[in-house]
Amino acid sequence: MTVSMHPQSAPDYATLFTETRARTHAIVAPLTPEDMALQSMEDASPAKWHLAHTTWFFEEFILKPHAPNYRSPDERFAFLFNSYYVQAGPRHARDKRGLISRPGVEDVLAYRAHVDSQLQALLQSGTGDTEAIHSITELGCHHEMQHQELLVTDLLHAFSYNPLMPVYRAPEPLETTQEIAHRFTSHAGGLVEIGHDGDGFAYDCEGPRHKTYVAPYQLGNRAATNRDWIAFMQDGGYDDVTLWLMEGWVVKQREGWDSPLYWWLQDGVYWSYSLRGAQPVNLDAPVVHVSYYEAEAFARWAGARLATEAEWELAARDTPLTGNFLDNKNFRPTAATESLWGNVWEWTQSPFTPYPGFKPPEGALGEYNGKFMVNQMVLRGGSCATAIAQMRPSYRTFFYPHQRWQMLGLRLAKDQGNV
Amino acid sequence: MTVSMHPQSAPDYATLFTETRARTHAIVAPLTPEDMALQSMEDASPAKWHLAHTTWFFEEFILKPHAPNYRSPDERFAFLFNSYYVQAGPRHARDKRGLISRPGVEDVLAYRAHVDSQLQALLQSGTGDTEAIHSITELGCHHEMQHQELLVTDLLHAFSYNPLMPVYRAPEPLETTQEIAHRFTSHAGGLVEIGHDGDGFAYDCEGPRHKTYVAPYQLGNRAATNRDWIAFMQDGGYDDVTLWLMEGWVVKQREGWDSPLYWWLQDGVYWSYSLRGAQPVNLDAPVVHVSYYEAEAFARWAGARLATEAEWELAARDTPLTGNFLDNKNFRPTAATESLWGNVWEWTQSPFTPYPGFKPPEGALGEYNGKFMVNQMVLRGGSCATAIAQMRPSYRTFFYPHQRWQMLGLRLAKDQGNV
Amino acid sequence: MTVSMHPQSAPDYATLFTETRARTHAIVAPLTPEDMALQSMEDASPAKWHLAHTTWFFEEFILKPHAPNYRSPDERFAFLFNSYYVQAGPRHARDKRGLISRPGVEDVLAYRAHVDSQLQALLQSGTGDTEAIHSITELGCHHEMQHQELLVTDLLHAFSYNPLMPVYRAPEPLETTQEIAHRFTSHAGGLVEIGHDGDGFAYDCEGPRHKTYVAPYQLGNRAATNRDWIAFMQDGGYDDVTLWLMEGWVVKQREGWDSPLYWWLQDGVYWSYSLRGAQPVNLDAPVVHVSYYEAEAFARWAGARLATEAEWELAARDTPLTGNFLDNKNFRPTAATESLWGNVWEWTQSPFTPYPGFKPPEGALGEYNGKFMVNQMVLRGGSCATAIAQMRPSYRTFFYPHQRWQMLGLRLAKDQGNV
Amino acid sequence: MTVSMHPQSAPDYATLFTETRARTHAIVAPLTPEDMALQSMEDASPAKWHLAHTTWFFEEFILKPHAPNYRSPDERFAFLFNSYYVQAGPRHARDKRGLISRPGVEDVLAYRAHVDSQLQALLQSGTGDTEAIHSITELGCHHEMQHQELLVTDLLHAFSYNPLMPVYRAPEPLETTQEIAHRFTSHAGGLVEIGHDGDGFAYDCEGPRHKTYVAPYQLGNRAATNRDWIAFMQDGGYDDVTLWLMEGWVVKQREGWDSPLYWWLQDGVYWSYSLRGAQPVNLDAPVVHVSYYEAEAFARWAGARLATEAEWELAARDTPLTGNFLDNKNFRPTAATESLWGNVWEWTQSPFTPYPGFKPPEGALGEYNGKFMVNQMVLRGGSCATAIAQMRPSYRTFFYPHQRWQMLGLRLAKDQGNV
Repeated sequence: MTVSMHPQSAPDYATLFTETRARTHAIVAPLTPEDMALQSMEDASPAKWHLAHTTWFFEEFILKPHAPNYRSPDERFAFLFNSYYVQAGPRHARDKRGLISRPGVEDVLAYRAHVDSQLQALLQSGTGDTEAIHSITELGCHHEMQHQELLVTDLLHAFSYNPLMPVYRAPEPLETTQEIAHRFTSHAGGLVEIGHDGDGFAYDCEGPRHKTYVAPYQLGNRAATNRDWIAFMQDGGYDDVTLWLMEGWVVKQREGWDSPLYWWLQDGVYWSYSLRGAQPVNLDAPVVHVSYYEAEAFARWAGARLATEAEWELAARDTPLTGNFLDNKNFRPTAATESLWGNVWEWTQSPFTPYPGFKPPEGALGEYNGKFMVNQMVLRGGSCATAIAQMRPSYRTFFYPHQRWQMLGLRLAKDQGNV
Repeated sequence: MTVSMHPQSAPDYATLFTETRARTHAIVAPLTPEDMALQSMEDASPAKWHLAHTTWFFEEFILKPHAPNYRSPDERFAFLFNSYYVQAGPRHARDKRGLISRPGVEDVLAYRAHVDSQLQALLQSGTGDTEAIHSITELGCHHEMQHQELLVTDLLHAFSYNPLMPVYRAPEPLETTQEIAHRFTSHAGGLVEIGHDGDGFAYDCEGPRHKTYVAPYQLGNRAATNRDWIAFMQDGGYDDVTLWLMEGWVVKQREGWDSPLYWWLQDGVYWSYSLRGAQPVNLDAPVVHVSYYEAEAFARWAGARLATEAEWELAARDTPLTGNFLDNKNFRPTAATESLWGNVWEWTQSPFTPYPGFKPPEGALGEYNGKFMVNQMVLRGGSCATAIAQMRPSYRTFFYPHQRWQMLGLRLAKDQGNV
Repeated sequence: MTVSMHPQSAPDYATLFTETRARTHAIVAPLTPEDMALQSMEDASPAKWHLAHTTWFFEEFILKPHAPNYRSPDERFAFLFNSYYVQAGPRHARDKRGLISRPGVEDVLAYRAHVDSQLQALLQSGTGDTEAIHSITELGCHHEMQHQELLVTDLLHAFSYNPLMPVYRAPEPLETTQEIAHRFTSHAGGLVEIGHDGDGFAYDCEGPRHKTYVAPYQLGNRAATNRDWIAFMQDGGYDDVTLWLMEGWVVKQREGWDSPLYWWLQDGVYWSYSLRGAQPVNLDAPVVHVSYYEAEAFARWAGARLATEAEWELAARDTPLTGNFLDNKNFRPTAATESLWGNVWEWTQSPFTPYPGFKPPEGALGEYNGKFMVNQMVLRGGSCATAIAQMRPSYRTFFYPHQRWQMLGLRLAKDQGNV
Repeated sequence: MTVSMHPQSAPDYATLFTETRARTHAIVAPLTPEDMALQSMEDASPAKWHLAHTTWFFEEFILKPHAPNYRSPDERFAFLFNSYYVQAGPRHARDKRGLISRPGVEDVLAYRAHVDSQLQALLQSGTGDTEAIHSITELGCHHEMQHQELLVTDLLHAFSYNPLMPVYRAPEPLETTQEIAHRFTSHAGGLVEIGHDGDGFAYDCEGPRHKTYVAPYQLGNRAATNRDWIAFMQDGGYDDVTLWLMEGWVVKQREGWDSPLYWWLQDGVYWSYSLRGAQPVNLDAPVVHVSYYEAEAFARWAGARLATEAEWELAARDTPLTGNFLDNKNFRPTAATESLWGNVWEWTQSPFTPYPGFKPPEGALGEYNGKFMVNQMVLRGGSCATAIAQMRPSYRTFFYPHQRWQMLGLRLAKDQGNV
């Protein structure tokens, strides 16, 4: 899927809202109520919870403060469906979301319909603090897109515990693909500015735009593929402690990792499980579901390193926003291309820290990103589970180094000096 | 509910099977598919799993070996729905049963219907090893009754994590009750025989019937009530280490217990949650959802002790089998009576050990009870979640001393000497 | 070592005290201050702590209440060296005993000398409540003997973490031994009395003497040996789930047990580590350092069972008290004999429960045994780490089914019926 | 203590070695063998282990490869005293170092004497690869200085579990101190170079020197003091979730933190424990033993932030190297001064990551720092437990955000814009 390079015209908020909400409904369409209740770990949430939480976001931050006479269908939903906004009140235990059988899916869909109609009415009315209403509507839509991605990956994680390996969308024959030779391209770096330039939507953590010095560097022309990864495995990558960060080695040992998540060996062939079911690994697709520890060890094995987020962002500014996104409905990576975008998020070597001068907004929405700025690593580029509308060069996502259930891969980088 | 004292005529197997299966369906009738998928801890299972596992039991132990040409609707169900019978093959992880959204409830009901019709046909045909077929049908029905009880208590446990406190069956106004004064009655004991006498159905662990010596003893005329328990609480029972077993004290501290499970204090009144919703505690109902550790400490506080299982069994032989059982559909204890039966299981001081001469049957069914004979305590009497058809004086159930989610209470006992 | 059958004349308390204290000093004589500070797990304590705690016992329960003007050398020792007597005041964390470098060994020896001289003076004076003083002196000596045993086994456990395998007492060449054929001997059982008869010292938990019915039974003529155990191992005993209690299987898997504690395989030969250093396993010595779970599985594999404690006690009454005890200074089992006594404690199938009519004494000393009466199993017979003066037919020791660091073995038993 | 600003002349290696080894011996002089064996957690090691490990370092990396005919007194020491250098062979379990009573302190001192004399002989001989010998001798001395610091802080941690609160060095009356008003000083920043310039000793992770852009900033004139910290506490700092990183809040709740480590409240006054014993908190000394999470929350509460490591390094270049270091033998912070150096390490907001172009050396010594470059934060400035000879502006130490047992404090910083 391709969209224009980095479009930043002011959106039609009602349309953005309608489209975003509809995309969520499309994602859950193939699911049963029982599918939508699954929670397989504390990091993940049931689809039903995602449906409700994204709705609560609009209710809590727009309808309650801005819609006169708004009445919630159930005041207790605020407790059930707040995620982590402590300034928005107490909330249900995160690891017990899978135990909420009531309200059921039907109730949650009714809650969505209620909020949808009320919010559309508010948007149409043109009354109230329209600037705030528009800006939080936009934020709420981007927020919902983030949850679309989580919904997809959380579902995959939960399904992976079912020995019957449920198929979310029917598989297709494996692509006939062709290997793209890996090579590095040079980038000049210099004293540059990175971060969002203020034109169009961005999260707080993408700014302030600020100066940074980037030494000349090289970036791989494509993401590391499954073919590359199997070479790493067959060369003993998972058994060579000298390739690993100490902490990564400990985690690897404890968890028994010897391949990416959802892989297994069957009659000498590597298979993996995705929302398209079980299939032999597509050798030319980017490797996915690897932790930072694994990605970092792989890069060392390859005689390279991961990129910094500044290096990635500089390169991305010159790259058309095209790739395999959620909109393509593949629900898994397809064969690697030379685009920086889509397919898999790429681990960078940059910890998720505040940019110089960063100040979170006042109030509960200030909790959106700022309070997570420790011990996580930045990833860039979006994945097959990301709505393309979310993407821009300054976009930073972040996960813990041990996490693997998202669509996480990597791209190699090098200093200019060591060609 | 009352039935004749200890009826042991040979059952009509087809009727027993029909009634047992129907009772299970009646229990789940008020539940949604999402309710039926809940698993709140490793000790508990989803209602859907209970539906399927009890069905698998008939399939695995009767239809597969005894019904010519029997075909399972899905061979993979054996993996999903075996509980712990290692000789019946590998099985799914016990703590992940809540992650099986597919097969859904509809699929499981179809599985049940399939097995029901096949088993009825086999029973009607009168062919094959009818003795084995009858005996395992009877065992399978009793097995299903045990799972009916678990289904009810597992559901309560799962619902208790829902801050909205779902109501399974609409509450009624609290009973107007009257306190029954507590007193002890004397029993002669002597060199007696306990254990099942071989007349009618019993589990392997109820035999062999064997001699044992029981010193003269006294037994409380009723179970300990919530009124009694509140007196214990108000007298500092949860804070007085000298009342507790060392191990119990450690568990109590770690878990923060200061009342029975599902209780809370609200404006000076104790409330509790049951499948009938939240209500003030019924002072004259037996206390329920207390661990062995708590029951044992309570008895010490009361200057008494728990009964042994032999003491209980001797007394029960003389007592009509009447009380508040699952069949009464109260789904919680009602006001205490002077019956030994029903309402709550009563912790005894007897560890669950093999009776002298005990040998488990050959094959997978030999795993039914024998392999659990360590570190658990015997309880007697049945509860408001037990089908009355399960009950007889020799019936032994058993749980770990720390467990509380079953309908567990107690009755005081004393040596004859220390009146 | 042999002593007269079951001597019960009133002891000379001063001599008993002197000998007991001297035995403790002899045990620690080969140790460095660093050895004496080791604590390898919460279940075990440093030798220095044992030295101090046994001294505190005399101070707390005799000198403080009964010796006029007694002054402790350091009032804070009561906090450091109380074990679990909550009625004697607060105490230091059990799992942090290894972190007390000060007071040092010299300080603790001075504490011992102080208490020794004060107690001897009190005993010589003949003043005060002599009955209480004598009786608690006797209890304190038996208490110290129990700690002598713990000191030896705790030291072995701590040393076992040292890859240099320290030798406590120099090894000797392996005994030349001869296998004693295993056979069962018959015992009549009947309605009998067990428990201590009140003649001479006994712990509270050994009484009251009471009637119990014992069916006719058979007992092995010797303990199970290492040769027997290797046969079990080689027959796949550790891999056959049908031999194991469910809980035992889970523990075995989690801990990775495939042999007794302190064993390893070296060039096809089993070696083990003891306080005499590393040596090949003595095939004719009783197996030691096995858990209840393992012992129970072994018995099932052998087509037998473990004895009950009543069965063991009945047989022991007719058996001279002779065997390999602490007094022999072997510090490990020697070749099996046909005695019931010494070498290794023998797991019984009896949970540690109160005898009918049991009442613990008033006060802190009532905490000695009573509060441990759940989830532990009784062992009988004493071991190579037990002072022979502790032993009598009614003696019950008890450990958790998963524990292995004591000198724990087993003897087979059978019902009379299944010869 | 003051030394010349940033002296970098080539050292006299023999003297450096002698002085370093002597300082270690001076630190342990007041300790008993039992003190030296304490290990209170996996992060900490016994003093005896530090003595031996630093010795092994010289043996392994200098004597074995460079001293002809060198013989180790015990080849097994390499297993016991290797810390984490996997390329130098297998090693003992880190969390079991406290269980090695043999070799004892005397043995370890003999090991030290042996290696000392052999290394001095090698240095005097002037033979062999003198460049390597000199460079690794220097590294080994700096390595030993790092362990001197750990030895001091590990000892404090272990002693803190002793309710008798051992005194390592006798206390002095509390200083009479005067509060230094807190103010910010401005720094220009710009496109600068940071990292070690290659003149004199530095660790691999201090280089390569590289360009970075630093926006204008402000730095506090002194570290945050206990007086400041008490204000934070009294203002509810530990209870206000909006001040905390999410992860920090979770850790704080789990650990029950409500003050720095080693503090308690006694009759309305805050006391703390240090190697000088228990004393009321010195209000004008820098706060110490706070985690990154706490430091970061404190800075937010103060309307400021932590410095980046580049900001700190730039400022330090202009600051004489003077302060309260290990050489001063205070073993705890003294009243705050306006120096950047000494007293407490200062948490920065910079994760410990490789500088651009960083390559660890080949071989086992390449494991020194590189493999720790994830999830840790950089601290700057040295502490009262740091030898002054270790310090220079480029020095980076690093700890996990939850760790508190080192001498860890903080200094406030601000953007230039928000004066």
